[in-house]
Amino acid sequence: MPIALQDVRTIGIIGTGTIGASWAAWFLARGYDVVASDPAPEAERHLRETVEAAWPVLERLGVAPGADPGRLGFLDGPEAVAARADFVQENAPERLEIKRPLLDLIDATLPADRVIASSTSGLKAADLQAACPRHPERLVVGHPFNPPHLVPLVEVVGGAGAAPEVVDWALAFYAAAGKKAIRIEKEVVGHVANRLQAALYREAVSLVAEGVASVADIDTALSAGPGLRWALMGPHLTFHLGGGRGGMEHFLNQFGPVMEAWWDDMGTPRFDDALRRRLIEGVAEEAAGRSIEQLAADRDRRLLAVIEAAGLLPSQLSKKQVQEET
Amino acid sequence: MPIALQDVRTIGIIGTGTIGASWAAWFLARGYDVVASDPAPEAERHLRETVEAAWPVLERLGVAPGADPGRLGFLDGPEAVAARADFVQENAPERLEIKRPLLDLIDATLPADRVIASSTSGLKAADLQAACPRHPERLVVGHPFNPPHLVPLVEVVGGAGAAPEVVDWALAFYAAAGKKAIRIEKEVVGHVANRLQAALYREAVSLVAEGVASVADIDTALSAGPGLRWALMGPHLTFHLGGGRGGMEHFLNQFGPVMEAWWDDMGTPRFDDALRRRLIEGVAEEAAGRSIEQLAADRDRRLLAVIEAAGLLPSQLSKKQVQEET
Repeated sequence: MPIALQDVRTIGIIGTGTIGASWAAWFLARGYDVVASDPAPEAERHLRETVEAAWPVLERLGVAPGADPGRLGFLDGPEAVAARADFVQENAPERLEIKRPLLDLIDATLPADRVIASSTSGLKAADLQAACPRHPERLVVGHPFNPPHLVPLVEVVGGAGAAPEVVDWALAFYAAAGKKAIRIEKEVVGHVANRLQAALYREAVSLVAEGVASVADIDTALSAGPGLRWALMGPHLTFHLGGGRGGMEHFLNQFGPVMEAWWDDMGTPRFDDALRRRLIEGVAEEAAGRSIEQLAADRDRRLLAVIEAAGLLPSQLSKKQVQEET
Repeated sequence: MPIALQDVRTIGIIGTGTIGASWAAWFLARGYDVVASDPAPEAERHLRETVEAAWPVLERLGVAPGADPGRLGFLDGPEAVAARADFVQENAPERLEIKRPLLDLIDATLPADRVIASSTSGLKAADLQAACPRHPERLVVGHPFNPPHLVPLVEVVGGAGAAPEVVDWALAFYAAAGKKAIRIEKEVVGHVANRLQAALYREAVSLVAEGVASVADIDTALSAGPGLRWALMGPHLTFHLGGGRGGMEHFLNQFGPVMEAWWDDMGTPRFDDALRRRLIEGVAEEAAGRSIEQLAADRDRRLLAVIEAAGLLPSQLSKKQVQEET
């Protein structure tokens, strides 16, 4: 059995690029000690700057009592991290030949009752588990949605090799750390969130290719329409409400055939040169001179209010968890 | 040329079911007089109750100076409405044999410089324009996203028959009335927003069918992940930011092939009996005893904060319009 949740005090972060540094900031804000390693030159400086830059936003989301960005140690390598960690979040580059020797070192040093989660978005759990020959059953995929310090979702994949109690533990651990974790029961490429996003994007791209509306207007159709509600409720529950008093059953009777007819009318675009040009020119027109940095800063500023409206602040989540348990 | 925007004082609402009554509430809140008709017994009572029920929410969104739910007249039929309206929003049931005679009556009475917009979600602009034999060029589809008093999106379709200046006028009019209106350049079934929603739902349903995750977890993957951001930004601009400093071009180079591979892996589900059962049972589990009414009230309460975070309050929109014009 993995370590008791309340005994998890120190989080090990392996790889402190964009994802790893954001994870480190989140765990620090939740009141954990964090120890990290990364072989890149300047990695420690980048990590500390990322945590510092994220901290004001994290304070507005609400930090745990005693949380302190100073409770961050940068160590000499993965073995040093594994020797001190109660849980390891691995964020090395997305190549098996890089992750494999790293995971082997971690597996050799980390006590057997500690769980390893990989942030991988594209590699198979089984391949990563094979890289932990001593205790493959304690490795899961714990895939965050970028950036982890702002977006609550974590997708947990046990695959063929994780012990069921390790998957349960990872779900409970992330929930205790203020994330919204979901269980992927069958491994598929892209997990769930990226597939949903890609499915919508396929139709968005197809509508551009077909000349139905401009890039900017297609974006508005989402953000001033269904996108407004998807922060509050996913597609299934949305349509359950769309069925009125009859709920999902009425929705399927009433709109199922229409939905299938729309599906049959949808395109299967490819990113050829002409389409790429239209997409690039279309977003340039939509951005109307605003830089990527301006757009991102504006969005992230507004995102806090959306997270609060959705009831996904750490304080709101822990209240909800208490309610659900009683 | 249609009537000047500042001369539009009275909105005609034909058909006061769910959509029409919600439109009436919105236009009243924006400071217009509204005249309405509907042949259903108790229609006037339903309309007034709907407006009254919506008013507190509209006040929180921000009503125009002088707006008053009392500035609502319920008239004897479509000709009486057309005789007094500066703009008509038609919301009759979604059947051409019902809409056709209604539109003919409106077309016969409404002065030639007044625009007719149909809320239809499924009928073709050309078929509705054919029902206005005197002035087919002044009819557009103005399709709201339900409910119009809360969700800003309106999809404007001119189709083959609307005059270009009428389409421009409708877009400008809705914007002046505090909506986010988009131009559909080529008519397709489902317009844009419903197609985007259906595309995402297809994959959500496919993931249930394939046993990848539970209905509730698939919903969470959206609402705690990409859904949080889609209130703030559509898919194209989202991926423009996803490309970092290189923007959309870098995104397409880096992630285009992955995206296409995900597309190729996506399912094409059908609502057979077994799948229907899993969806119905899945949302029941997710709802966990909460009634449709409770879920809807909770969502709509939170929706106001999302609308504000997205900068889509009427006051925020008009400020933005002023900025963009100067």
